[in-house]
Amino acid sequence: MASLDTVLARIDANLDTSLGRLFKFIEIPSISTDPAYAGACTQAAEWVVAELQSMGCVASLRPTAGHPMVVGQAKAARPDVPHVLFYGHYDVQPPDPLELWETPPFGPRIAESEAGKQIIGRGVADDKGQLMTFIEACRAFKEIGELPCHVTFFLEGEEETGSPSLPAFLSANAEELKADLALVCDTGMWNKETPAITIMLRGLVLEEVVIHGANRDLHSGMFGGPAVNPIHVLAKIIAGLQDEKGRVTLQNFYNGVSELPEEIAFQWRNLDFRGDEFLGGVGLSVSAGEQDRNVLEKLWSRPTCDVNGITGGYTGKGSKTVLPAQASAKFSFRLVGAQDPIKIAETFRTYVRGRLPTDCHADFISHGASPALQLPFTSEALTLARRALQEEWGKEPVLAGCGGSIPVVGAFKKDLGIDTLMVGFGLEDDHMHSPNEKYELSSFHKGTRSWARILSALAQ
Amino acid sequence: MASLDTVLARIDANLDTSLGRLFKFIEIPSISTDPAYAGACTQAAEWVVAELQSMGCVASLRPTAGHPMVVGQAKAARPDVPHVLFYGHYDVQPPDPLELWETPPFGPRIAESEAGKQIIGRGVADDKGQLMTFIEACRAFKEIGELPCHVTFFLEGEEETGSPSLPAFLSANAEELKADLALVCDTGMWNKETPAITIMLRGLVLEEVVIHGANRDLHSGMFGGPAVNPIHVLAKIIAGLQDEKGRVTLQNFYNGVSELPEEIAFQWRNLDFRGDEFLGGVGLSVSAGEQDRNVLEKLWSRPTCDVNGITGGYTGKGSKTVLPAQASAKFSFRLVGAQDPIKIAETFRTYVRGRLPTDCHADFISHGASPALQLPFTSEALTLARRALQEEWGKEPVLAGCGGSIPVVGAFKKDLGIDTLMVGFGLEDDHMHSPNEKYELSSFHKGTRSWARILSALAQ
Repeated sequence: MASLDTVLARIDANLDTSLGRLFKFIEIPSISTDPAYAGACTQAAEWVVAELQSMGCVASLRPTAGHPMVVGQAKAARPDVPHVLFYGHYDVQPPDPLELWETPPFGPRIAESEAGKQIIGRGVADDKGQLMTFIEACRAFKEIGELPCHVTFFLEGEEETGSPSLPAFLSANAEELKADLALVCDTGMWNKETPAITIMLRGLVLEEVVIHGANRDLHSGMFGGPAVNPIHVLAKIIAGLQDEKGRVTLQNFYNGVSELPEEIAFQWRNLDFRGDEFLGGVGLSVSAGEQDRNVLEKLWSRPTCDVNGITGGYTGKGSKTVLPAQASAKFSFRLVGAQDPIKIAETFRTYVRGRLPTDCHADFISHGASPALQLPFTSEALTLARRALQEEWGKEPVLAGCGGSIPVVGAFKKDLGIDTLMVGFGLEDDHMHSPNEKYELSSFHKGTRSWARILSALAQ
Repeated sequence: MASLDTVLARIDANLDTSLGRLFKFIEIPSISTDPAYAGACTQAAEWVVAELQSMGCVASLRPTAGHPMVVGQAKAARPDVPHVLFYGHYDVQPPDPLELWETPPFGPRIAESEAGKQIIGRGVADDKGQLMTFIEACRAFKEIGELPCHVTFFLEGEEETGSPSLPAFLSANAEELKADLALVCDTGMWNKETPAITIMLRGLVLEEVVIHGANRDLHSGMFGGPAVNPIHVLAKIIAGLQDEKGRVTLQNFYNGVSELPEEIAFQWRNLDFRGDEFLGGVGLSVSAGEQDRNVLEKLWSRPTCDVNGITGGYTGKGSKTVLPAQASAKFSFRLVGAQDPIKIAETFRTYVRGRLPTDCHADFISHGASPALQLPFTSEALTLARRALQEEWGKEPVLAGCGGSIPVVGAFKKDLGIDTLMVGFGLEDDHMHSPNEKYELSSFHKGTRSWARILSALAQ
């Protein structure tokens, strides 16, 4: 097997040709949401297949009801090394509004900024540039010898439209895709100099509640007083969900929520993160929710209860003296640690039913329930990846949480039974989903080197 | 002046010609909301003018920005008698859905029902038949001699579209319209055998509140926890407006709310009204609101606080993980007695502001504030009208409240400084605003006789 130093040198020497390949990839307008670009999506998938084949991998395009998947395989020289499953997506967001782009979105270029060189183009950060860091790292290994780990490449073209074909594809091809560890590159760095490994994703319970009162809308003059108002009932239900200290009041809600290991808590406390600046960016100044937790903790490692939408009665202009027959709200609970989404949904429904007056009943609609995901703090892969990133960047990587969810990581856990190491080199100002999307050249170059180091480390 | 008995006999003798006139009136499709029927509205107004003139009144059509008003004057024989201002409206609701009418809506007819004869046609109960009871009573007086009271007739053609021209017309013509007492016929009987005088109308404060949090909608994963959620803030505001006993918690809210005179309380307690049946009709079984009040009391003589509409965040199908930048609700307060609408609106705003966290602010929109209206229990007109109705129907009239509002009654109080005696002969099952609208022939005939008795009594 080639030495890591040789591989890193090859990556450096390859940089221009690597960029050329990335540019070709970006030039394909693989906009998954727009049926007019279905052909471009297939073209992008075929491009990746050819790319993997040109490196000596076995790769094929796999049809689905939507855009095709790409699956590739490459064996390591040694059999007794870990097998990783690398996930990325070749589809991109529409470039609209086009008039805000400084240059054509599918005409990639290098721009000079004060902070250094940047690659500009739709999809460069989300996710074409990111996934190419991994593929280019593998190419460097293959150009010199063999890969240090067995690698399965798994790329989809529907991430930007909610991955409708992914769950069925994963179930149907679980045996083929099975690996020891998944690698997902759809995440970011802490800042331009500091890498990050995302080790926890919050789970999500989505519950819609419809409260029914009278059998029709009533005139508030003719019935106001003795007739129950479902909006009031709903308001009391919402108001009762949090106590004065911002804690969720559902019974046993915090079962499975544990405190952070001191090492991580210490790292988070010492990050250059200012809660007031974070909130100030959206016009807020006071941290809501649990009063004894700091902002970063709340975002990454604490559960929440929020109402994402509410409606009832007359909502047009002016007034209408109506007592509505129903009112409804959409609730979301972000979960952490070992909180059980099914139990929490049940407890929530019991709570709601317990607060309904005699004349009201509730309908419930589940819009999903998924647990939090956590790469165990003690995972060997985590230890090895931390060291590899530290060596490349000269800085200890931040062990980050993520307030949102990355559905594919949950699917890997559920369908393949494996944990995911989430490493990516995006930055907050990459303009993902916006005009003038960019990816730092340093993210691309050192990201490729980082994956070479991680693959090498995992095989040790 | 003609004796009352002679007048009543004339009304009886006139019944068929009275019905003929009413039929002509109903045949004019004076649908105020539909511009295609503007000509018919003017035609209906002209018909009323001609009708009043044919009785010997001075009457004219008075243009407005919308449909015309009709004003008529008739002096009594004696100068020292009360001057009444009679209000009605000649416009009607659209007849849709047409296919549910058994016969054409503007082709009036007499139908036989188990309970007796009924007049069928759009607008017969609301308000053409009702207003003709008064005009026919006046006609009978005029055919024999003179009216017992001075009468000003005031009819509009925009009641079904919210009376947009009425306030300005009243202000501009206050001197001409001034009288000692207003008579409004837009109300109903207690039941087919029992007349009613509506002596109290609830007032109404309409306040819309918009709660603003962050300066844009936020991702509930990326911001959920530390970012304030305006829906929660609004829910707590709503939940806090009523205490456990269903009383409104606003400071001094019940100032000006007095207990009913025992005579009226006794009458209400002994009416054949069952709160459970009233609520059962709309699918409810338990009386909400103030726990120490019965249903009729709550509807007629107790104030309320209701939310008539609420909206915030995502309200479409499925889910969206958004923390909305704002949430809003439309509140209505029904007022009684001497509650001050301006003070209550102010108290409400103070209450809301006091419950806003630092990061939220509220915008308020007033959609109106009008006080409750009450014909004083000690009013001589009330005493005389009660006796007159008792004599016609052989039953003590119910002194009713009305949970809703009748804006013109407020305008008479505000602009002309006079109280209103509300007497009408509609029934709950008249299908007002619905297909097959009807008016009992007995309501028309005995209603006309009732007005003759009331006019005669008021002049005593």
